[in-house]
Amino acid sequence: MKHYTSIHDIDDINSWIEDAKALKKDPLKHLELGRNKTLGLLFFNSSLRTRLSTQKAALNLGMNPIVMNVSGDAWGIEFGDGTVMNGNTAEHIKEAAAVISQYCDVIAVRAFPTLTDKAKDESEEVLNAFKKYASVPLVNMESATGHPLQALTDAITISEYKKKDRPKVVLSWAPHIKALPHAVANSFTQAMQKMDVDFVITNPKGYNLSPDIVGDTPVIHNQEEALKDADFVYVKNWSSYEDYGKVVNTDPNWMITKEKIGDAKFMHCLPVRRNVIVEDAVLDSDSSIVIQQANNRTYAAQLVLKKILENA
Amino acid sequence: MKHYTSIHDIDDINSWIEDAKALKKDPLKHLELGRNKTLGLLFFNSSLRTRLSTQKAALNLGMNPIVMNVSGDAWGIEFGDGTVMNGNTAEHIKEAAAVISQYCDVIAVRAFPTLTDKAKDESEEVLNAFKKYASVPLVNMESATGHPLQALTDAITISEYKKKDRPKVVLSWAPHIKALPHAVANSFTQAMQKMDVDFVITNPKGYNLSPDIVGDTPVIHNQEEALKDADFVYVKNWSSYEDYGKVVNTDPNWMITKEKIGDAKFMHCLPVRRNVIVEDAVLDSDSSIVIQQANNRTYAAQLVLKKILENA
Amino acid sequence: MKHYTSIHDIDDINSWIEDAKALKKDPLKHLELGRNKTLGLLFFNSSLRTRLSTQKAALNLGMNPIVMNVSGDAWGIEFGDGTVMNGNTAEHIKEAAAVISQYCDVIAVRAFPTLTDKAKDESEEVLNAFKKYASVPLVNMESATGHPLQALTDAITISEYKKKDRPKVVLSWAPHIKALPHAVANSFTQAMQKMDVDFVITNPKGYNLSPDIVGDTPVIHNQEEALKDADFVYVKNWSSYEDYGKVVNTDPNWMITKEKIGDAKFMHCLPVRRNVIVEDAVLDSDSSIVIQQANNRTYAAQLVLKKILENA
Repeated sequence: MKHYTSIHDIDDINSWIEDAKALKKDPLKHLELGRNKTLGLLFFNSSLRTRLSTQKAALNLGMNPIVMNVSGDAWGIEFGDGTVMNGNTAEHIKEAAAVISQYCDVIAVRAFPTLTDKAKDESEEVLNAFKKYASVPLVNMESATGHPLQALTDAITISEYKKKDRPKVVLSWAPHIKALPHAVANSFTQAMQKMDVDFVITNPKGYNLSPDIVGDTPVIHNQEEALKDADFVYVKNWSSYEDYGKVVNTDPNWMITKEKIGDAKFMHCLPVRRNVIVEDAVLDSDSSIVIQQANNRTYAAQLVLKKILENA
Repeated sequence: MKHYTSIHDIDDINSWIEDAKALKKDPLKHLELGRNKTLGLLFFNSSLRTRLSTQKAALNLGMNPIVMNVSGDAWGIEFGDGTVMNGNTAEHIKEAAAVISQYCDVIAVRAFPTLTDKAKDESEEVLNAFKKYASVPLVNMESATGHPLQALTDAITISEYKKKDRPKVVLSWAPHIKALPHAVANSFTQAMQKMDVDFVITNPKGYNLSPDIVGDTPVIHNQEEALKDADFVYVKNWSSYEDYGKVVNTDPNWMITKEKIGDAKFMHCLPVRRNVIVEDAVLDSDSSIVIQQANNRTYAAQLVLKKILENA
Repeated sequence: MKHYTSIHDIDDINSWIEDAKALKKDPLKHLELGRNKTLGLLFFNSSLRTRLSTQKAALNLGMNPIVMNVSGDAWGIEFGDGTVMNGNTAEHIKEAAAVISQYCDVIAVRAFPTLTDKAKDESEEVLNAFKKYASVPLVNMESATGHPLQALTDAITISEYKKKDRPKVVLSWAPHIKALPHAVANSFTQAMQKMDVDFVITNPKGYNLSPDIVGDTPVIHNQEEALKDADFVYVKNWSSYEDYGKVVNTDPNWMITKEKIGDAKFMHCLPVRRNVIVEDAVLDSDSSIVIQQANNRTYAAQLVLKKILENA
């Protein structure tokens, strides 16, 4: 593996899960692997878990993390080909990515979608431009359409908490006041499709994810029916894909409650809006494994960096 | 000691002062103590000395500092209990603190007061929420009502520069155009109350600090009288406590001058507004020990981190 | 050498170039030199290359870099002497520089010019205030009138790519929509004046650099004539020096094209506005060495830090 930009960069998810669990038991075992190597973390958007856990993962491998908030710290970056750059952007990605590659042994990038231009978002303009013009390995810290570090985290967490060989996992949409990306839901769906789980998605009509992502996964518009006998309920809001980037439904009946969750484990990538996405009673109970899930962000990132460093 | 959130977390201020002086003589002696441990520095507000000295202190102990400007880098944090989070805050402190605790071995937080809601400020909402929901030790890098790293620094500095067993220490209010917090003055007062010094406070009428802080310390409204025979003059502006958070006096006669200071040493936590709080002639003379005082910030922070690491 | 604030701090540019090339071959050779020492990087302005390459250089020497965006992270800094500080600035450079010197073994500063007040810019107010009030070595990461880390980089790059003993080097102005500083052009000119090259400057009338910088260097207002038989074409926009800080010419005919460049190597400090300063066909061809040039930023900074540490 050179880059980790999509969940499809994982060759065998089960072996990766085992590798991550081994790292978690002995996080400092490979402290020499990244010694004197730098990880550049480039943020085009806000980040808490990804920002901290990826730095922690790098440190566990002996790497030096260098963090940059691209917009605030550096220059506006141009992605268009052939652009006459007499506008707001001061540096082309061709130069930026090639230059950063000379100071960093691995580059990690976070760049959210526009949610207004579906074609642009699906082209993964920023991520793919870095992939094309960087000369070092690239890690996706959440792009327009995917969040594969989160999805690997989720796979590890489900593996740790499952009580049967083939648990039922439900991805449920929940309401939110703002238009949110599809990245987490997309990558989670793709991860579940690679695992031995009984996976269904539930969301209101008009909120189906991209057909390319959903594939053969059952989509059930009746949340109660979908949640029946669930072992894991993974909750996430996303804006409409069909009516792209729009908030067409804020029905509070889709909020996850203690009653709905039953004996299932509650998962969420965080940050989560309490009493909008899920009621306090769920998050404050043993049903919730969101904190343990967030902890696995470190080991997912560390495994990815370890594989990249070993391959370099 | 698990947390260092208040000057009251110091069991014996004299032994701490001696420990800090020993660290100052040999700052790298404990370079292995924090090896492969991370200190998360979370800033809700601006910082120069605290930002740099606390990182330096961590590095002196072999720790890896990770800095985050919470508002700019991450998400708006909700502190209310039971809030329906459909407003501007995206993540609850319950999740934020618990999650950060998994990436950082120690968390340090700076969060200034509102200066508009006395009850809220006195409840130390942010600091106490971190204390409650974090699972790792917490260091106060200036909270709504206290700045105990600064106060420990001040105690060390007075101990270094005192020329008699029981020096006279005066905390003097000085004018400022903006409404400033009480944190530094509060913690300094509490530190002096623990030390063997002759301590008095001088401020205009209407500017008494909280009675809970002042306790038995004499408050003199005549600055000249208070400064008489002082060995140390610690100067700081604060907004009114009685008329909470208001600037009710900007009388320039309270500015500290060379004439007023006499043979005393001038101390200030910095940043200081020249020729508003104190005239150039004081800061530019040997009377001022503000730079030496700022230097001790490193050793105060280093001692606190050392004690936390040894106790972990 | 104590400070590195100007290209004139280089005693012998040829020996420095050889030293930098040696570092480039074995960047980690001096990993113990900076161990447990901190480099404070203070940015008053945006930065990508300088930000990352200077951190990388410090890490290659075993130093701990600490980055601070002064305006956003800390306090507004006052540079005036005797100011009554009841305005927007909260801390005087006298305190700031002295205090930071206690937490950092070396301080590096970036502070752009006003481009509105020539006298102020030429006095190098910020840089010189740090130099005056800091008690540790200072590195100029681009000041009002100079960018000596860039110029050292440029000298190294020309030495690497030259195919004759005395290559012809042309500094050409190119159009830009915004008013840009003279720093890069100034320091590049000064570096070329120290090297064994045939150096000419070409710019439109009204765009001559400061006579103090230009000295005896030929200035040719006919770009085509200047570029004839060039081995290296160093391109940069700057605002007018005569009509200080103004954009008085945006003539697109000054843009560098493939045809103009011929067999010469194209250099630029970056960021560069494509199809404004230079057409894509140049940057996307082997004529361009801007990426290799940017790579040398690390070794220029590393050499400077190494010399400072060895001298400390």
